[in-house]
Amino acid sequence: MLNVGLIGYGYWGPNLARNFDRRAECRLAQISDMRENRRALAKAAFPHTEVVDDERILAAPDIDVMVIATPVFTHFDLAKKALLNGKHVWIEKPMTSNSEQARELVELAESKGLTLMVDHTFLFTGAVQKMKELVDSGELGDLYYYDSVRINLGLFQHDINVIWDLAPHDLSIMDYLLGPSVRAVSAQGSDHFKTGFEDVAYVNVFYDNNLMAHFSLNWLSPVKIRRTIVGGAKKMLVWDDVSQEEKIKIYNKGMEVTTREGVYRILATPRVGDMTAPVISNTEALATEVDYFISCIREKKRPINDGHAGLRVVSILEATDQSLREGGKIIELSSRQTRS
Amino acid sequence: MLNVGLIGYGYWGPNLARNFDRRAECRLAQISDMRENRRALAKAAFPHTEVVDDERILAAPDIDVMVIATPVFTHFDLAKKALLNGKHVWIEKPMTSNSEQARELVELAESKGLTLMVDHTFLFTGAVQKMKELVDSGELGDLYYYDSVRINLGLFQHDINVIWDLAPHDLSIMDYLLGPSVRAVSAQGSDHFKTGFEDVAYVNVFYDNNLMAHFSLNWLSPVKIRRTIVGGAKKMLVWDDVSQEEKIKIYNKGMEVTTREGVYRILATPRVGDMTAPVISNTEALATEVDYFISCIREKKRPINDGHAGLRVVSILEATDQSLREGGKIIELSSRQTRS
Amino acid sequence: MLNVGLIGYGYWGPNLARNFDRRAECRLAQISDMRENRRALAKAAFPHTEVVDDERILAAPDIDVMVIATPVFTHFDLAKKALLNGKHVWIEKPMTSNSEQARELVELAESKGLTLMVDHTFLFTGAVQKMKELVDSGELGDLYYYDSVRINLGLFQHDINVIWDLAPHDLSIMDYLLGPSVRAVSAQGSDHFKTGFEDVAYVNVFYDNNLMAHFSLNWLSPVKIRRTIVGGAKKMLVWDDVSQEEKIKIYNKGMEVTTREGVYRILATPRVGDMTAPVISNTEALATEVDYFISCIREKKRPINDGHAGLRVVSILEATDQSLREGGKIIELSSRQTRS
Amino acid sequence: MLNVGLIGYGYWGPNLARNFDRRAECRLAQISDMRENRRALAKAAFPHTEVVDDERILAAPDIDVMVIATPVFTHFDLAKKALLNGKHVWIEKPMTSNSEQARELVELAESKGLTLMVDHTFLFTGAVQKMKELVDSGELGDLYYYDSVRINLGLFQHDINVIWDLAPHDLSIMDYLLGPSVRAVSAQGSDHFKTGFEDVAYVNVFYDNNLMAHFSLNWLSPVKIRRTIVGGAKKMLVWDDVSQEEKIKIYNKGMEVTTREGVYRILATPRVGDMTAPVISNTEALATEVDYFISCIREKKRPINDGHAGLRVVSILEATDQSLREGGKIIELSSRQTRS
Repeated sequence: MLNVGLIGYGYWGPNLARNFDRRAECRLAQISDMRENRRALAKAAFPHTEVVDDERILAAPDIDVMVIATPVFTHFDLAKKALLNGKHVWIEKPMTSNSEQARELVELAESKGLTLMVDHTFLFTGAVQKMKELVDSGELGDLYYYDSVRINLGLFQHDINVIWDLAPHDLSIMDYLLGPSVRAVSAQGSDHFKTGFEDVAYVNVFYDNNLMAHFSLNWLSPVKIRRTIVGGAKKMLVWDDVSQEEKIKIYNKGMEVTTREGVYRILATPRVGDMTAPVISNTEALATEVDYFISCIREKKRPINDGHAGLRVVSILEATDQSLREGGKIIELSSRQTRS
Repeated sequence: MLNVGLIGYGYWGPNLARNFDRRAECRLAQISDMRENRRALAKAAFPHTEVVDDERILAAPDIDVMVIATPVFTHFDLAKKALLNGKHVWIEKPMTSNSEQARELVELAESKGLTLMVDHTFLFTGAVQKMKELVDSGELGDLYYYDSVRINLGLFQHDINVIWDLAPHDLSIMDYLLGPSVRAVSAQGSDHFKTGFEDVAYVNVFYDNNLMAHFSLNWLSPVKIRRTIVGGAKKMLVWDDVSQEEKIKIYNKGMEVTTREGVYRILATPRVGDMTAPVISNTEALATEVDYFISCIREKKRPINDGHAGLRVVSILEATDQSLREGGKIIELSSRQTRS
Repeated sequence: MLNVGLIGYGYWGPNLARNFDRRAECRLAQISDMRENRRALAKAAFPHTEVVDDERILAAPDIDVMVIATPVFTHFDLAKKALLNGKHVWIEKPMTSNSEQARELVELAESKGLTLMVDHTFLFTGAVQKMKELVDSGELGDLYYYDSVRINLGLFQHDINVIWDLAPHDLSIMDYLLGPSVRAVSAQGSDHFKTGFEDVAYVNVFYDNNLMAHFSLNWLSPVKIRRTIVGGAKKMLVWDDVSQEEKIKIYNKGMEVTTREGVYRILATPRVGDMTAPVISNTEALATEVDYFISCIREKKRPINDGHAGLRVVSILEATDQSLREGGKIIELSSRQTRS
Repeated sequence: MLNVGLIGYGYWGPNLARNFDRRAECRLAQISDMRENRRALAKAAFPHTEVVDDERILAAPDIDVMVIATPVFTHFDLAKKALLNGKHVWIEKPMTSNSEQARELVELAESKGLTLMVDHTFLFTGAVQKMKELVDSGELGDLYYYDSVRINLGLFQHDINVIWDLAPHDLSIMDYLLGPSVRAVSAQGSDHFKTGFEDVAYVNVFYDNNLMAHFSLNWLSPVKIRRTIVGGAKKMLVWDDVSQEEKIKIYNKGMEVTTREGVYRILATPRVGDMTAPVISNTEALATEVDYFISCIREKKRPINDGHAGLRVVSILEATDQSLREGGKIIELSSRQTRS
């Protein structure tokens, strides 16, 4: 039986609590939140769980697993304490506020032999599982581009900009699909309300093999769009995460390119074929991820979304900050991106 | 009666021919195309019009108006000859291959007192007319951003990249909505087939008053999207040009921002209101534009889409070329953008 | 404090339990279900509630309110016992298997002075509230038709056909919008699997003032559609309940009809105007309904969805059975439809 | 060379003229319309074609083919004269105002050895061709139902109701898919403006093998929907004719039905699989149909949409009139429906 402590009962905390509480292998022992109204909600929803307002949970000897769902700027301190106290750690994304912190947590977890996992939830959705399958099997062919639009009228985060809020989804998905292969990144954006944090931003990420990813991120959009297009040499796919059905559509479409003599040496003709929307598992991603986390702890497996993955994502985010400051300059990342 | 000559009977030429042919004030006197199969089509569709395979039309003394719908790299030579021969000129977008050419045509037309108009067709659509009305009346409030997605599986152009193909739409629309106010531009893209021309590209344009525009342009997309979002301080609009109905949706949505004491000094809360889809004129834009062109000639009016407007668009496109070569560097444009 | 007992913890029971449990004025004292696996779920979700496998709850002296969420054929017996034992009754739709049973329950509740309410949940949605407002204010003008499509690939009900399953939604909504005004009904359908219950059916309902409603009901559709169109003389609305945003769209459209001399005496021309999607409350309908039920009990108010409303719906359903048996014959209902 | 005469240059006439004019095997010799403004349009569009205002065309000795695109009530007289004068006849749908007229035309054409074809255009669309292929190959399995919604804010026809206007599409498609197999029909509707013609109507058609078709037809809808669902035992399809892409979607979905002991003898469980949108030919249906008509004349083939097919459709329409008059009574058709 794993005793689980959760710190942070805000937007995402209740989902974490519910999913850990459901597991037979877990006991949701304690929930901590500084806000009284959030504690009241936690008490009502989990009557058998102790609900507290401080961080004693990090040092509680009977807690095996710490789940950290607080604002980003607090992640490092909390996770470090938890690891030093010998606890396995589940941490929300983005992992930390900078890569140095992330690296320290990775090393600490490794030296202690503890499991450190970053909650890149999308990896555990049926849609991304299907995308991974399509990439790995070669069905899409060589990838040309990855283009993601994540826009809506959103509650502004207080301590991070729209890139740190939304780009971890795409960065972790690409990390999962392709492995560590980011070479460089560029970002431009606007901070319309002088909060110090961009609310609209555009990010280009340059991967190995001339693959370019683009993220369009916006907290000021009147419509909610979550749409990712992956263009491959053989097939292309569109992932519409707002759609309730047919989230993934695979298009047997492409461009036939032939070279020839003459003025126009290259002739590119569209190739059009069937579209297929495969059945996608609709199991709750977080449920799958919690199961996986527990099995990683028990079997001492390294999670695909381990601290290294979290570090890679944070390193890219950090580079976007630099690029934003330098007017969209391309920031190289090659030396930072490794698997372990 | 204006005698009209059309040079170039490719994709767009038939629409031009049809619209000039319909006008009582015009006689479609001659069509020229180098390709035999295109000439055959022209003959069948316009039995009363002379169809030729050379450029004699540019010097024909009885031709008053030249309509130029050939590949971009030929625009300058053809338009220059036509102007030198005293003809009013309608020229497809983009106006020329570089700003120097554009400037020369502008000056030539002015010195000759001839009308020079660039076919920025979208300005004459019901959708853009409605957008102009909403911007001018202040209904949208100060603009935060303009975000346009123009993607589809397209026939590659042979002499221009995807930016020169698709960005003129948004650049001319913004020029119309805001007047000349581009400060700088940045572009990154990919040339997947080594044709020398990008097939996927992302452009950021920086306008006065901290307004940023973003264009997502792609010839390799499995789905066709033509969707522009304009975020304003009071209202926001979405223009879906692929939709057959409700092309323009106006959202009474925004962000309420309040400052306060404490850690989080700024609180931004979404404000949600009704959405309205106004009735949009569905008159063919090209028909309206041809009427307007004729009235500009007759009344010696300067068109809103005159050579200066065409020059401004070409100058920005030219700057995107430079930005592409320099890795997305922001290229300043301030000195180049003037109204006349 | 009202002590609440719930009988039937199937598809809808958990939602009822959750909403009654949340109310400060209620105590969810007991849940009853015959199925062991459902009882286990109830116990896990409501640890403070007694969970039993029999009907003792109906006679329990300390239970004030019975919530009945069992199959339709059991409704009458259970509700009758509950009323005889002096309990207020919340009963799922359709109220009973026939109008005689419904009438007996209505009379019993009235003679005992108890609140009897039928769970016509849709009446408490933001969408139907908005429709009611538009009808009552006259904004739609005189109604021409009500056309509803409720189709999906559904679990077949075991004791009722697709009409008894889905038509109560539209019948109760129309009852709410217009008051009791059904004159006659007609139904045709198919029972593709020889279960004795139609899985596809079409119902026409004839109201006063020449208003016709049509319901297209289908358990065998590959796509889920919940779309209702209400045509009025002034405006028309479309309610798309599957849509996550803009559930209600109001069209300022109609038909201008003029009479004149000649062969075609009547000229009908479409009138096209703006479309507006008003903000709709997204409060959970069931939460609103439970509040309303409690206030009806406390203030001894007659609910809009009282036993009479339930009886009117059952009477129409009963008539559809007769119409199905007689090949779609129009069955008159006038004498049966009264408000109290 | 076939000399073609067209009578009626209204809504559809220009499309017919254009398609016959394009054919090398045809000469569009004459167009007739009573309305001066329509004649002016015809002259402008077809300068080599004689344009007249009377019916002399029906007797012109050099006309081989008459194309009749006038209001329905005139079809019979015009087609009869054309056939008596030895001309092949293309006639718009519905073929005639009643079955007696249709039968007379069929017999006349047969006795004269002339080709008589009814313009059931939809049979020649890529979508219906694909549906035919799916039905014939058995991919859909036995058909359960055909459900069609054809609604929009429409110009009211002056001489026919909404059933005669829109139902011929579905009736001819079903006739093509299944062959003559209508047993009976039922219809109910409303005439909101006392024009004598229903503007909203619902039709149920009963085919052999317990297959039921439903048509929802409406000239008073604020939205345009053209959506047909065909439910089969193996697969199901949705045809959305308003959609510009993916008009046909094939769902590998269905209902698994098992019988067992106990109260609920039959258990029906949804089966969910992939959806596929096949590539559909987007050749203009009318162009294909005109080619086919010419080849039928030249090769003396009987068209699939010959006079018999037109007669079958008219017979069903005629029965809907009777059903409307008798309150939706099911009208038997068995004896009338034959192939030749």
